[in-house]
Amino acid sequence: MLVLRSGATSQGSIGNCKGSIMFIVNVFVHVKPDQLESFETATLENAHSSVQEPGIARFDVLQQQDDLTRFVLVEVYRTKDDPARHKETAHYQKWRDTVADMMAEPRSSIKYNNVFPDNNGWG
Amino acid sequence: MLVLRSGATSQGSIGNCKGSIMFIVNVFVHVKPDQLESFETATLENAHSSVQEPGIARFDVLQQQDDLTRFVLVEVYRTKDDPARHKETAHYQKWRDTVADMMAEPRSSIKYNNVFPDNNGWG
Repeated sequence: MLVLRSGATSQGSIGNCKGSIMFIVNVFVHVKPDQLESFETATLENAHSSVQEPGIARFDVLQQQDDLTRFVLVEVYRTKDDPARHKETAHYQKWRDTVADMMAEPRSSIKYNNVFPDNNGWG
Repeated sequence: MLVLRSGATSQGSIGNCKGSIMFIVNVFVHVKPDQLESFETATLENAHSSVQEPGIARFDVLQQQDDLTRFVLVEVYRTKDDPARHKETAHYQKWRDTVADMMAEPRSSIKYNNVFPDNNGWG
């Protein structure tokens, strides 16, 4: 419990003194089956543009093997301020509006910090 | 539904004709609070060794921001056969045995394929 008391912050991981503070958001998406191709087209376009943002190190799109209607967007931001900047971009707003009616249920997300690799290992 | 019928395979993503077949496993780990530092030490050692395996493109370790006892290991394998090879390594077996008693609950996992980037974008 010492670790939790002494090292926890809202930003950094604990037990890791190497300053690993990449701000990583996993977004869970459940797509209507008949919207899969349209979703993938819109999401690839957004991903290609997003990785050009200086605040984004990676923007991976994963498709679940045993349920092809489920995706995870792994968004790796260089700082905690970069997600807000991403949401101001035209490509994000176009994606958000384009896929709105393709969702089988609302998206959810979980925020992470990097333990490994350190900040130099994300591109 | 056409997409599901015509494009789904046990290996590849659908709606994506670029041959994206990286085999990605997200392993969800819930650690006992008093084992955080020990878990992180063992997991960093395993991650450093794992990324040296030819079949592993990435081996990211993420810590959940709002619950520091929860981690995701993002294991990116080049083929579906590489997870089995990983489990044969000394470093994996050492990690598995070392962390066995550090778990607050059994690990779970979900398998994915890559939609973006393509196979060249994982290191």
